[in-house]
Amino acid sequence: MTSAAAVDMRPIEWADGRVRLLDQTLLPHREVWIELDGCGKVVDAIRQMRIRGAPAIGVAGAYAVALAAAELVEDPQFIAALEKAAAEVRNARPTGANLAQAVDRMLEEARRASSPAAALEALIAEAQAIQDEDESANRAIGRHGAALLPQGCVALTHCNTGALATGGFGTALGVIVTAWRDGRVARVLATETRPFLQGARLTAWELARAGVEASLIADSAAGHVMRTGQVHAVLTGADRIAANGDVANKIGTYSLAVLARENGIPFYVAAPTTTLDPSIASGREIVIEHRPPEEVTDFNGERVAAPGIDALNPAFDVTPHEYVTAIVTERGVVREPYTDGLRRITEDERG
Amino acid sequence: MTSAAAVDMRPIEWADGRVRLLDQTLLPHREVWIELDGCGKVVDAIRQMRIRGAPAIGVAGAYAVALAAAELVEDPQFIAALEKAAAEVRNARPTGANLAQAVDRMLEEARRASSPAAALEALIAEAQAIQDEDESANRAIGRHGAALLPQGCVALTHCNTGALATGGFGTALGVIVTAWRDGRVARVLATETRPFLQGARLTAWELARAGVEASLIADSAAGHVMRTGQVHAVLTGADRIAANGDVANKIGTYSLAVLARENGIPFYVAAPTTTLDPSIASGREIVIEHRPPEEVTDFNGERVAAPGIDALNPAFDVTPHEYVTAIVTERGVVREPYTDGLRRITEDERG
Repeated sequence: MTSAAAVDMRPIEWADGRVRLLDQTLLPHREVWIELDGCGKVVDAIRQMRIRGAPAIGVAGAYAVALAAAELVEDPQFIAALEKAAAEVRNARPTGANLAQAVDRMLEEARRASSPAAALEALIAEAQAIQDEDESANRAIGRHGAALLPQGCVALTHCNTGALATGGFGTALGVIVTAWRDGRVARVLATETRPFLQGARLTAWELARAGVEASLIADSAAGHVMRTGQVHAVLTGADRIAANGDVANKIGTYSLAVLARENGIPFYVAAPTTTLDPSIASGREIVIEHRPPEEVTDFNGERVAAPGIDALNPAFDVTPHEYVTAIVTERGVVREPYTDGLRRITEDERG
Repeated sequence: MTSAAAVDMRPIEWADGRVRLLDQTLLPHREVWIELDGCGKVVDAIRQMRIRGAPAIGVAGAYAVALAAAELVEDPQFIAALEKAAAEVRNARPTGANLAQAVDRMLEEARRASSPAAALEALIAEAQAIQDEDESANRAIGRHGAALLPQGCVALTHCNTGALATGGFGTALGVIVTAWRDGRVARVLATETRPFLQGARLTAWELARAGVEASLIADSAAGHVMRTGQVHAVLTGADRIAANGDVANKIGTYSLAVLARENGIPFYVAAPTTTLDPSIASGREIVIEHRPPEEVTDFNGERVAAPGIDALNPAFDVTPHEYVTAIVTERGVVREPYTDGLRRITEDERG
């Protein structure tokens, strides 16, 4: 399969008044597309991680609001009812920035419409625009990010940041696939990414489809491969980026960033500007989602861990900006001082 | 169950001319003791990780040599044949120091004996002595190590370093259980320790039996819990310690040590002096075992990772001595400069 085939897939789409998405809990062994005809079903799918990745959750949330509008189009208190449904969508998962931003954008669109019916039509178009804009932002990120990498390097990545995690194309994995086509990336090391195994299940699936030479490693092997000179750049995505450049991302990202700095390896974060949250000064204010302990203690519904012990399962961590070599956005590459650089980018966006 | 019940178990014993061991690949859900009546069977059990942990592998290797002696007692070239069998035992797993040391000690004992029959009797006693000495060294390590910990602290540990990993009592986990009884450890965070899940399966089993309050975390969550102030000390075992204090231990140990230093948390290594290898100047000379990629890509014999990707599976890494706050041995606590401190301890042993 060509490399185009991997990055050009989209994990979610609007189809005849429904949301159609690839169930990522069943990948890589089963490729099952599910069709969801109600807002609550999309919220459940987000909570259950059938679709995941902050940008993809943002797109799913937008479609969920469109489905809510379809359900509420006869409601005499249309806007109030839609706001209530939207609040449910916004709370489906707390850490990623894109979801709340997409939902807010959808509500603004609804308020501008002259009638519920007009709102419904506008919201479907708006959700599709959010997805299209995300994909084109990611293609730009791919170009900006690839340019940072030297020829023939080995890139280490964490979790899944490919097309599956986004509206399309991917963030950090989009950079990697772009750089693979350019010959800049010669090989990829992908962490398996416990407990949900996004690396082993999803990133490996995308890399294999793209024909990229890659190996999995246990998360705990990342330090060893860095220290023994087997890695030239570390690239991850982001779920939320504070005004000072602190990055919330999949649990383990902070460890990779510390290990990269300790070993003189650049640590790049690739994320669309929809992941920026200028309303929070630093990563201290980011809410870290804790997921069920069973994700750690069980496998395929069967207990693996010894009886009598529980698990802490923080799904994300915060990497302080001083460990981040650069943040790659669709508007260009930002470096320290991040407060200035990110403000400039946000103002561009508003201007 | 009392805390004595956990640390007082032994994972291996000599029983009526056979080696009896608890099959650690089946824990925690099945407690199956297997009886091995030949040297080759013990070598296979070591390779398959039915018994694991550098000190326990040393004990198993000693018993394997005793079984070889029983098989070869009629051999006219007894010592030469025993040396050949012993070479097989020594190569069962390469990284840990204790195995080669135990095998060498057994061969010396055999050479001192007046006859093969006398050698066999002496070797059985010697292997039992190696196990007894390991357990009593570990009890001393437990006392020395516990004294380093403040009252009411949270200790983070990696892999399994309990009774299961040793002749008895455990190294880092022996320290933790000792400190739990003293009230010095209030709670334990145990990494699940991919890919073999020694933390989730074995350490959790021992902690639950000892009644210690504990939670599992994914390996990748260790940095987050350290950075958010949830950990006061990190304790691990060791598989081999070079003359300069560099420590080979379970993959992921290096990452924990870097993260501990970055967060101002002490990083302690608990190991008997049988783990010291004064013959190598630094960790660069330590052979890192690479285990089958299926340990990463598969679970219970079923493929989890996407098709078309392989895995790197280094089973150990090397932590440079500058990240190690102290090495706790049965002869006391050694700190920088390690070259001097470890030499002093080795000379004590020989004197």
